[in-house]
Parts: sequence; structure tokens; C-alpha cells
Amino acid sequence: MNVCVYITQMKLNQDIKVAVDIVLFGYEQNQLFILLIKQKYGKYKDRWSLPGGFVKDNEGLKEAAFRELREESGVVVKNLEQLYTFGDDIKRDHRYRVVSVAYFGTVKPSAMKLKASTDATDAKWFPLEDIAKLPYDHKYILQTAYERLRAKLNYQPIGFNLLDKKFPFSDLENLYMTILQKKIDRRNFRKKILSFEFLEETDEIIKKGSGRPAVLYKFNLSKYKQSIKQGINFEIKFA
Amino acid sequence: MNVCVYITQMKLNQDIKVAVDIVLFGYEQNQLFILLIKQKYGKYKDRWSLPGGFVKDNEGLKEAAFRELREESGVVVKNLEQLYTFGDDIKRDHRYRVVSVAYFGTVKPSAMKLKASTDATDAKWFPLEDIAKLPYDHKYILQTAYERLRAKLNYQPIGFNLLDKKFPFSDLENLYMTILQKKIDRRNFRKKILSFEFLEETDEIIKKGSGRPAVLYKFNLSKYKQSIKQGINFEIKFA
Repeated sequence: MNVCVYITQMKLNQDIKVAVDIVLFGYEQNQLFILLIKQKYGKYKDRWSLPGGFVKDNEGLKEAAFRELREESGVVVKNLEQLYTFGDDIKRDHRYRVVSVAYFGTVKPSAMKLKASTDATDAKWFPLEDIAKLPYDHKYILQTAYERLRAKLNYQPIGFNLLDKKFPFSDLENLYMTILQKKIDRRNFRKKILSFEFLEETDEIIKKGSGRPAVLYKFNLSKYKQSIKQGINFEIKFA
Repeated sequence: MNVCVYITQMKLNQDIKVAVDIVLFGYEQNQLFILLIKQKYGKYKDRWSLPGGFVKDNEGLKEAAFRELREESGVVVKNLEQLYTFGDDIKRDHRYRVVSVAYFGTVKPSAMKLKASTDATDAKWFPLEDIAKLPYDHKYILQTAYERLRAKLNYQPIGFNLLDKKFPFSDLENLYMTILQKKIDRRNFRKKILSFEFLEETDEIIKKGSGRPAVLYKFNLSKYKQSIKQGINFEIKFA
């Protein structure tokens, strides 16, 4: 096929494509999951990978991330946060030079209906520890996202959207232990968290199994949002 | 001019350009500076802006940031950290749809020789508070970088490369007060910082003006690096 173009101005001589990839963490019953989709086309056809794809000329980066996630998995999320832009390895994609702007988010899988479409034939939650290999540099992107999630727990009150509206304190402990993958000192943890003042005791209690009844907590949304906005400083206060 | 091309495969229909921009912070004598370059070409000719430019097809993103900084200002830095990728506003550049991967770093201006070249006619350090307007969304990029720098002070031991090898404790206090733009409680600050154990007292003292002689400190590089690597957790320890 011959194509003729009339060139009216000097074109910038750059041939790099821009894509987005999404790492969506799910948390349910003390387990951390990752949303993967099954590739419909190309070299990695039928392989599970992170949702993602090329950005359209007329859409913003974050908008592209929401769209790709929705199209490939049916999942609509409220928030995605930019993770990192991967493009130091110029051969990370065999098709083109592709720079990928990665996003991550956290949701409750049970609240989501999965439905693959466009470039994906299937979408599914995988326990984090079951994911051994992924196409492209998706494993590296996933690791970066997981490190960020863990690091953020230390300086930002995240993870609350993964719990019920009212929850016993032990649910929060379990969430932290699951994401940080280690035991925590419960007394210390409780003291710290309560000192941040975005948790409120309700007058409701819950009784599970043979355990003692537990007070339910909820979090103070405005204080919570304020502290996220400030990038918080959980502890180090100089002023 | 008519150009004919033979198309051998389906091309991805995307026309987005990828650029890098660099926010370089300089710190000297209790003042924070930003490196700006004077534009040589285009709509913003003769205007001061952040160093930056388009990524070459065969170079990594970070590599492009180092190159642009070096070409436009003569400055060679050891480290640049990825800040954020700007591309939600599809009209942030009037020339093309441009996605910009922004980097930031911190240096001592006195150790740098400035020399503009390629797309810049001049390079200069500006006190942060003197920068009122910048072309494109560079002011927004600068603000984002400054917020990140301030936030990082709260959870990572940064800024030490801005001090002399051995320094009185007051230099560190001044650095923090300058970047955070507020007075700090000196006793509290000293207690916190020393508790992190990456500062070491030397057996040297310094006497400035009429003040009391002050002990010089240096920092323990291996402990410092270790804590940066861990993303630190200055305070919140659950284990």
C-alpha cells in the first residue's frame, strides 16, 4: 500500500508510544489479591497479565487507566494513584518503544463484577503469592506497586476502603499484617493508630465465634482525608 | 512536499510525544534555589523555564533527564528521582500532545558550573520564592516537586548531600527549617534525628562568630543508605 502525505511543518522525529498499566489490589479475608486479565491477541495471547493498553490521543493518562481497567475487566474504581512511569528499558515491549505510566488502587473484590472485553478474554483475581511470572515487565511493575503499598502503610492511613464501614480493631490489625507480611505488636499498633485520631469508637459491639465481644470502630472521614491530603506525618512533628 | 511511504504493517494510531522535565533544588546559606534555563527557540523564546526536552527513541527516560539537564545547563548530577508524569491535561503543550516525565534532585549550587547549550541560551539559579510564573505547566511541576521534597523530609533522611561533610547540628536544623518553611522545636528535632542513629558525633568542634563552639557531626553512610533503601519508617514500628 502506498500512502502519500503532505508535510506542512517539521515533524518531531520521535517514535515512542505511551501506555498505561494498572495494578489493582484486592483484599478479602486476610488475603491480598491482584486483578489480572487474559490477553486476547499478540505474542502473549492467552497469558495472564496486568490490565492496560495504549493511551488515546484525546484522553488524559489517568482517564486512559480507568478506561482500560473498565474495558478489560469490567471493574470501575473510584481512585487510581499514579505509581511510576516505566521507560528506562527501551526494549520492555517487543512491538514498539513503549513508555508505560503505571497506576495502582485498592478495592474489595467481593464488591466487583468481573467482565472481560476488548483486548481481554477473561479477568480474574489471583492471590499475590500465586503470581510467578507475567509478560513484559509486569512482574516488576507489580513488585513496585506492592512495595509502594507497604511503604504507604507506614506514613499514610490507607487501606480503610478495604474494611467494612464499622469494624472490630482486629480487622485493621489483620489488614496491616497481611499487607506487611509480618506479625505486629498489637498493643503498640493500637496505641499508634488511636493516637492519629481518625478512628472513632462506635457504641456497637460484635461477637464472633467463641471470642470476646469486640467494639466496632469507624473512621472519621474528614480527619482521614485531611491527613491523606497533608501526606500525613504520622509521627515526626517538629513544630 | 509530497512524501510516499510503503506501509508494511498496521501502525498503532497514536501521536503522543514523550518529554522529560527536571526540577533541580539547590540549597545554600539557608536559601532554596531552583535551576532554570532560558529558552532559545519557540513561543517561549527568552523565557526562563525548567530544563527538559524530548526523549530520544534510543535512550531511557532517566538517561534523557540527565542528558537534557547536562545539555541545557551544564549540570551533571549523581541522582535524579522520578517525580510524576504529567499528562492528564492533553493541551499542556501547544505544539503536540506531550506527556512529560518529571524528575527532581538536590544539589549544592556552589559545586556546579553552569553552561547553557542546545535549546538554552542561559542557565541560572533562582530563589524559590522569586519564581512567579513559568511557561507551560512548569509552575505546577515545580510545586509538585517542592511538596514532594517537603513530604520526604518527614519520612526519609534526605538533604544530607546539601550539607558539608562535617557540620554543626544547627546546619541541619537550618536546612529543615528552610525547606519546611517553618520554625522547628530544636530540642525535639535533635532528639528525633539522633534517635534514627545515622548521625555520628565527631571529635571536632567549630566556632563561628561569638557563638559557643559546636560539635561537628557526620552521617553514617551505610546506615543512611540502608534507611533510604527501606523507604525508612522513621517512627512507626509495628514489629
